[in-house]
Amino acid sequence: MSSRTVIRGGLVITASDEIHADVLIEDGRVAALAASGTPAAAAWTAERVVDATGKYVIPGGVDVHTHMELPFGGTFASDTFETGTRAAAWGGTTTIVDFAVQSVGRSLREGLDAWHGKAEGNCAIDYGFHMIVSDVNQDTLKEMDLLVEEGVTSFKQFMAYPGVFYSDDGQILRAMQRSAENGGLIMMHAENGIAIDVLVEQALARGETDPRYHGEVRKALLEAEATHRAIKLAQVAGAPLYVVHVSAAEAVAELARARDEGRHVFGETCPQYLFLSTDNLAEPGFEGSKYVCSTPLRPKEHQAKLWQGLRTDDLQVVSTDHCPFCFVGQKELGRGDFSKIPNGLPGVENRMDLLHQAVVDGHISRRRWIEIACAAPARMFGMYPKKGTLAPGSDADVVIYDPHAEQTVSAETHHMNVDYSAYEGRRLTGRVETVLSRGEPVIDQRKFAGRAGHGLYTPRSTCQYLQ
Amino acid sequence: MSSRTVIRGGLVITASDEIHADVLIEDGRVAALAASGTPAAAAWTAERVVDATGKYVIPGGVDVHTHMELPFGGTFASDTFETGTRAAAWGGTTTIVDFAVQSVGRSLREGLDAWHGKAEGNCAIDYGFHMIVSDVNQDTLKEMDLLVEEGVTSFKQFMAYPGVFYSDDGQILRAMQRSAENGGLIMMHAENGIAIDVLVEQALARGETDPRYHGEVRKALLEAEATHRAIKLAQVAGAPLYVVHVSAAEAVAELARARDEGRHVFGETCPQYLFLSTDNLAEPGFEGSKYVCSTPLRPKEHQAKLWQGLRTDDLQVVSTDHCPFCFVGQKELGRGDFSKIPNGLPGVENRMDLLHQAVVDGHISRRRWIEIACAAPARMFGMYPKKGTLAPGSDADVVIYDPHAEQTVSAETHHMNVDYSAYEGRRLTGRVETVLSRGEPVIDQRKFAGRAGHGLYTPRSTCQYLQ
Amino acid sequence: MSSRTVIRGGLVITASDEIHADVLIEDGRVAALAASGTPAAAAWTAERVVDATGKYVIPGGVDVHTHMELPFGGTFASDTFETGTRAAAWGGTTTIVDFAVQSVGRSLREGLDAWHGKAEGNCAIDYGFHMIVSDVNQDTLKEMDLLVEEGVTSFKQFMAYPGVFYSDDGQILRAMQRSAENGGLIMMHAENGIAIDVLVEQALARGETDPRYHGEVRKALLEAEATHRAIKLAQVAGAPLYVVHVSAAEAVAELARARDEGRHVFGETCPQYLFLSTDNLAEPGFEGSKYVCSTPLRPKEHQAKLWQGLRTDDLQVVSTDHCPFCFVGQKELGRGDFSKIPNGLPGVENRMDLLHQAVVDGHISRRRWIEIACAAPARMFGMYPKKGTLAPGSDADVVIYDPHAEQTVSAETHHMNVDYSAYEGRRLTGRVETVLSRGEPVIDQRKFAGRAGHGLYTPRSTCQYLQ
Amino acid sequence: MSSRTVIRGGLVITASDEIHADVLIEDGRVAALAASGTPAAAAWTAERVVDATGKYVIPGGVDVHTHMELPFGGTFASDTFETGTRAAAWGGTTTIVDFAVQSVGRSLREGLDAWHGKAEGNCAIDYGFHMIVSDVNQDTLKEMDLLVEEGVTSFKQFMAYPGVFYSDDGQILRAMQRSAENGGLIMMHAENGIAIDVLVEQALARGETDPRYHGEVRKALLEAEATHRAIKLAQVAGAPLYVVHVSAAEAVAELARARDEGRHVFGETCPQYLFLSTDNLAEPGFEGSKYVCSTPLRPKEHQAKLWQGLRTDDLQVVSTDHCPFCFVGQKELGRGDFSKIPNGLPGVENRMDLLHQAVVDGHISRRRWIEIACAAPARMFGMYPKKGTLAPGSDADVVIYDPHAEQTVSAETHHMNVDYSAYEGRRLTGRVETVLSRGEPVIDQRKFAGRAGHGLYTPRSTCQYLQ
Repeated sequence: MSSRTVIRGGLVITASDEIHADVLIEDGRVAALAASGTPAAAAWTAERVVDATGKYVIPGGVDVHTHMELPFGGTFASDTFETGTRAAAWGGTTTIVDFAVQSVGRSLREGLDAWHGKAEGNCAIDYGFHMIVSDVNQDTLKEMDLLVEEGVTSFKQFMAYPGVFYSDDGQILRAMQRSAENGGLIMMHAENGIAIDVLVEQALARGETDPRYHGEVRKALLEAEATHRAIKLAQVAGAPLYVVHVSAAEAVAELARARDEGRHVFGETCPQYLFLSTDNLAEPGFEGSKYVCSTPLRPKEHQAKLWQGLRTDDLQVVSTDHCPFCFVGQKELGRGDFSKIPNGLPGVENRMDLLHQAVVDGHISRRRWIEIACAAPARMFGMYPKKGTLAPGSDADVVIYDPHAEQTVSAETHHMNVDYSAYEGRRLTGRVETVLSRGEPVIDQRKFAGRAGHGLYTPRSTCQYLQ
Repeated sequence: MSSRTVIRGGLVITASDEIHADVLIEDGRVAALAASGTPAAAAWTAERVVDATGKYVIPGGVDVHTHMELPFGGTFASDTFETGTRAAAWGGTTTIVDFAVQSVGRSLREGLDAWHGKAEGNCAIDYGFHMIVSDVNQDTLKEMDLLVEEGVTSFKQFMAYPGVFYSDDGQILRAMQRSAENGGLIMMHAENGIAIDVLVEQALARGETDPRYHGEVRKALLEAEATHRAIKLAQVAGAPLYVVHVSAAEAVAELARARDEGRHVFGETCPQYLFLSTDNLAEPGFEGSKYVCSTPLRPKEHQAKLWQGLRTDDLQVVSTDHCPFCFVGQKELGRGDFSKIPNGLPGVENRMDLLHQAVVDGHISRRRWIEIACAAPARMFGMYPKKGTLAPGSDADVVIYDPHAEQTVSAETHHMNVDYSAYEGRRLTGRVETVLSRGEPVIDQRKFAGRAGHGLYTPRSTCQYLQ
Repeated sequence: MSSRTVIRGGLVITASDEIHADVLIEDGRVAALAASGTPAAAAWTAERVVDATGKYVIPGGVDVHTHMELPFGGTFASDTFETGTRAAAWGGTTTIVDFAVQSVGRSLREGLDAWHGKAEGNCAIDYGFHMIVSDVNQDTLKEMDLLVEEGVTSFKQFMAYPGVFYSDDGQILRAMQRSAENGGLIMMHAENGIAIDVLVEQALARGETDPRYHGEVRKALLEAEATHRAIKLAQVAGAPLYVVHVSAAEAVAELARARDEGRHVFGETCPQYLFLSTDNLAEPGFEGSKYVCSTPLRPKEHQAKLWQGLRTDDLQVVSTDHCPFCFVGQKELGRGDFSKIPNGLPGVENRMDLLHQAVVDGHISRRRWIEIACAAPARMFGMYPKKGTLAPGSDADVVIYDPHAEQTVSAETHHMNVDYSAYEGRRLTGRVETVLSRGEPVIDQRKFAGRAGHGLYTPRSTCQYLQ
Repeated sequence: MSSRTVIRGGLVITASDEIHADVLIEDGRVAALAASGTPAAAAWTAERVVDATGKYVIPGGVDVHTHMELPFGGTFASDTFETGTRAAAWGGTTTIVDFAVQSVGRSLREGLDAWHGKAEGNCAIDYGFHMIVSDVNQDTLKEMDLLVEEGVTSFKQFMAYPGVFYSDDGQILRAMQRSAENGGLIMMHAENGIAIDVLVEQALARGETDPRYHGEVRKALLEAEATHRAIKLAQVAGAPLYVVHVSAAEAVAELARARDEGRHVFGETCPQYLFLSTDNLAEPGFEGSKYVCSTPLRPKEHQAKLWQGLRTDDLQVVSTDHCPFCFVGQKELGRGDFSKIPNGLPGVENRMDLLHQAVVDGHISRRRWIEIACAAPARMFGMYPKKGTLAPGSDADVVIYDPHAEQTVSAETHHMNVDYSAYEGRRLTGRVETVLSRGEPVIDQRKFAGRAGHGLYTPRSTCQYLQ
């Protein structure tokens, strides 16, 4: 017997439409949408009726860049898959794609298995994996084919972090060539890490050890350079490219230039680049450490270009790069040496709200909000229309969003396992009220109603953005 | 009592989704969509059930650039609103936006009333009007405000055709300033007509009178120049801009440059620029006259840039600029003087099929087909989601499209009132099978089932592309 | 018997070299240069020996944009050829090229004859003429050929000033086509005057009548637009193009873009755009009127792009556009209506000094100073190496320049016939000490030693910048 | 007692002037120039009078990129300093700047001393050295300062040849930072060698071993990428940049873009890229090996962009990258494996003639010929006006050039020590007749009149192109 839920009377917003419609859910899927008030809608009966009058009914958020439990710089990101996915749900996100890590000298499989182990049975919402490729060799290249077949269809490489995740241009080219054949999508951390390391060393030698120097040495020009280089290597390989966490105006310009030439080049940015700046890195004492991530925060004037890129589709996705480290005991590892501050910010809970605030502020339209936060990431990474939209047949990952509620962001009230908020004290208009994952309530009228283990691994098809 | 239709088992394609869904129509509107095979779908009963198994179910086409019965060069476009809209329906188009013409010295109102008179009671499908502004003055500017309020929200100006439709840069600037205030959208025919007229005179003086010289004097550079100029004037005015019938690669580049700077600049192209070329203009005898339109056909190598522009969203809309003149008696007016050939091509019936062929050929995706032919034009001109999509609440303008049917285009079989086809003999894959307009069959299994007068005037809101 | 002068011991600076050399003048020409201190130099004897120790020895300045006695707006530029060329000499300029004006309905010849009449017998230094073409027609086009043959090889057209000097795009295209054949060079005043007139009317209607509104309505974007349009028309015509008085950063960008594509496009700027700004236009009271010229002064931030253009050779020439109107009685015509302020600034006396200051300030090198102020203008307009350099065979137009002298610019001390200085009170390093024109002293140790009538008409060959 | 030579009656061509002048040489220097036929010229007496009637009198060529005796791939470039400089003189070149090589693990000094040892006493013409920096470390950086002081003011780095000359981006950044302080100029071999090595390995694995694959794997895109990267690194360092042997249109575009932004970025190309193409690499048998050099020859269509770059000054210098290897015994090392073919072409003897042919063919003007082959290289590398021009005080390095003589290039008649010519059979108009080095005949009426050891080491000042 089918379990049915009807969501009545809300404004259903997808990437393409804003319609007054009722949503019928059967067995965890969106079975039908009907114009509110029509006989068709009126005919529906259901075990559970959700009243969404005056609310938005939107697809659950899809955050394709998280790092739960990531080992980094001798410590671990402070959110586990359990705490992190619960916080995601509180923030209206119903799918994450996290990064499994290949260790140098080990196979991709080994890394992937380890990450499956961390996530399985612990997640409140559905999840998938990208694969970080740290060691390109003949075996790795063959494994890439297998992973694509089993639903891990994207591979991250780093032009930064020499000696850790770094790949040289030859390794990048080889992986791109392989992805051109097997349909995988290369995700690139585009910063010239070799040059940056020189600047880091020189800064430290000059006694420039405070967090704000993290922003100064990781220059916008060196992000733009690496972005350009990645684009050209992808062009040589005949492969598409996805550049993660774009923060510099100059890097957006490189993406725009490539797209004008018809290249399949995509860009992601994150809320921290849209809402924070080097002003935060320069906060007094060691406060700046809370804002240390790579690519780094940029001077405020870069933000306008990022918003423009999001409007003109030179940037397609906003994800969080959620990678929290507590101020006490973790960020503090870098006192006296900014290069030892663990890189990363918490954010998985804040993304949907911050982007709604961008709607309120006039940066983007409501539909664009859903596009960049739900539909585009789902398409980009092969999960559409299962995830990222509300269409008949989609997973019933649904958020009832109150566009008029007011909230103040704070570590005191957030649900991420980290002792500070990067947006502490910020007042926002709009708030998640209820969240369904495959039809099941995870957040119900602002109470957690989910459970660890409800969230399932989601294998993905290849990138759907290439048509 | 409600009349209900259900379309079962097709692949519903919109600009954003491809889903297997049944479509329920109540009282001329899409009441609901349900995933095929679900209890929700199964529960539906209807007076009329259309079996769409193996077919596409798509929104009716929206052609925002037609010229039925247009007086031009001493003659009239050969399709009336009756014949032209019937042909449109045959081709899967369920909405047109035609151009009412202001005569110099007369009011906008007078022109608009005249066009209402031509269309009313004669159309097989719904229609709206843009207004051609030939005479910008204080009265005209005030009338623009009124027209916007009553649903004529777009105004066309010409940088070409001095002495006929031509506006100088001052008139253009004034109209743009006004539209920046009243929300209207300026549509621009962007060719430097003043310079072109010099080249026309010189060509004729050299005895270059054949149709192909039409293509030579109307230089791509002079389209690009005017496009750039219109963009800059719009920037001065703080107004958005829509450039009609973009045909030159260099003009696309200007649009792309403007969009990279974040300008609200939009571009339309037409099937003739995507599928035909100066090779056609150079056909022997006087055959070339069949392909005389302005902007003119370009050398084949421009096509790649147009397709690219459609893929990267530097061009948003494909319309037809349908403006047919019979070869016999009309095109022939220009024998011995290409400048006397009436400018225009038939095409309202061919657009959806040609663009489906582009899908088959790999130029665009299926969703992009619907985007550029249905959703984007509807949004651009304030008719969404009533027109251009299949969402609960939309008008039930629906096409059942057979993607596997083969057809050969020919004047012998087409329904436009013109004695030749610009695509004579071209073999296409895909064909319209059934067309509903507000739920009523217009084409039913490839039989005309509509009637003059079914089509209603559609007032429009302002451009929805600015968010 | 030959008259000989030797200039000993100076640093001879040309566009290409800086050498310690003695200069031997015979019969009004540079006969020889010898390395100072060599037997070859020592062997020279002369009637007149000028000691240039510690000084620069440079070619006399070439100012290719002056308007002596120009009728404009019901009055006349206040410098006659006599007062204006005397002032030029004081400032180290030994050649001017002024503009003869065709009146609408009259022939080029008539205008040229009138200007010959004004200049002949009155000039202290050599002079040539460009021709302002106000009325392009078949007769005018034929006359252009004749003028090129007799040494008037450049023709100015205006995209501004509708109803006065304005040419439409067709007239421009025709003149460009003709110049492509006869070797003439089209000089363009590039501003969209049609659009500007709309903005002028609107500003005045809003009561914005002060001089600073002159700067606001003549928008940088409309200079850039016209520059782009002129470039495209020249490309259609296959003709080179010289854009006069470039003032907007956006216009420089258009020139740079064209040059990157290999177009023969040249740009001139003037000291007022390099040293003054809209701040001056906004000076209190009616002071701003002193700075009214077209193209207008721009906000200060445009200056950096102009200097860059001069360094990278996207701008080739600095001329003055000298066109003085007295504050009392002339500029005052525009009290209460900025559009009635006569357009123009005095400057023919200040150019060489201001550009030397730019050397002192590090904007340009000494050789670039001579390039943009002497050599390039001479080459551009067919007078090289007779004018613009110091090579064996050149006219002995020589300036002994004291690079260390200090001066303060002031209307009290300047020699131009105008009651104010645009640079009043500005302190400059460097000053003209002695000026020879064809070997004859015009300024001798800062005393005027010349005479009206010494200056001769200089017919010119075609542009030498095209190789 | 002074030795005097007079060159009578020629057309003296420098980068800036073309004048009919006699040239007086005293003690190895140009003492004076006098207009031919003037009393000043007539007064000169001399031991030696050279009649240049009907000939060009030009500065001796300056070739700033040669590799005499270079060890490469297990063999040595086949020209010694003796044979190579003699051939250079035959071709009208009177100064070379060769590259001393630092071996990894050794000091710059050691390398420089070794190269001094090879050259001293052996050269027919003057010479200087750049330094190849293969091993950037703290000691090397300090040595760079010393070398600048003693006249080795330019340093070459390689983004290609991993494991041999290759520097990583950190080493490049450090060297650039140092040169920003000490005034040195970094010369960059801009190809992404890491990526290229992957393509080489893959090509060989596919059995693509013929010379033409050398051109295919060293992709134009990878030259453009490295060029862009070098520009950005230089921007971070605040240093100027000189890119050697630019061959790809896309790389020229990167230089142009940087120059439009005002960067101090310079580019050199070579005759082989202007006159040869991948057609040569694809010559049958193993003939293609004769044309193997890096950057490689490009498809013919790149040439137009190189010529344009030379005209618009986006490229400033034409040098030869002379690095000859005999076909027999040397090029043959790469039979069956193109990656083993020694990289390099002979050309030091052909450059001036080939560029004169470019004058004849209309690619460049006569003055531009001298600019790119004499003056600009001398200025770029701190030897002006001692070298590169004919001004009073310059070294009397003079070529009497017969612009009408016809010649056919051939290994049978050339003077380079290599068994083939890259231009075999090519007919050229123009030929060197007489060459003076510091006033002494080296070639006298097409007879060798020089001697090993006449040529002296020429220390250089820092780059004079930055003003």
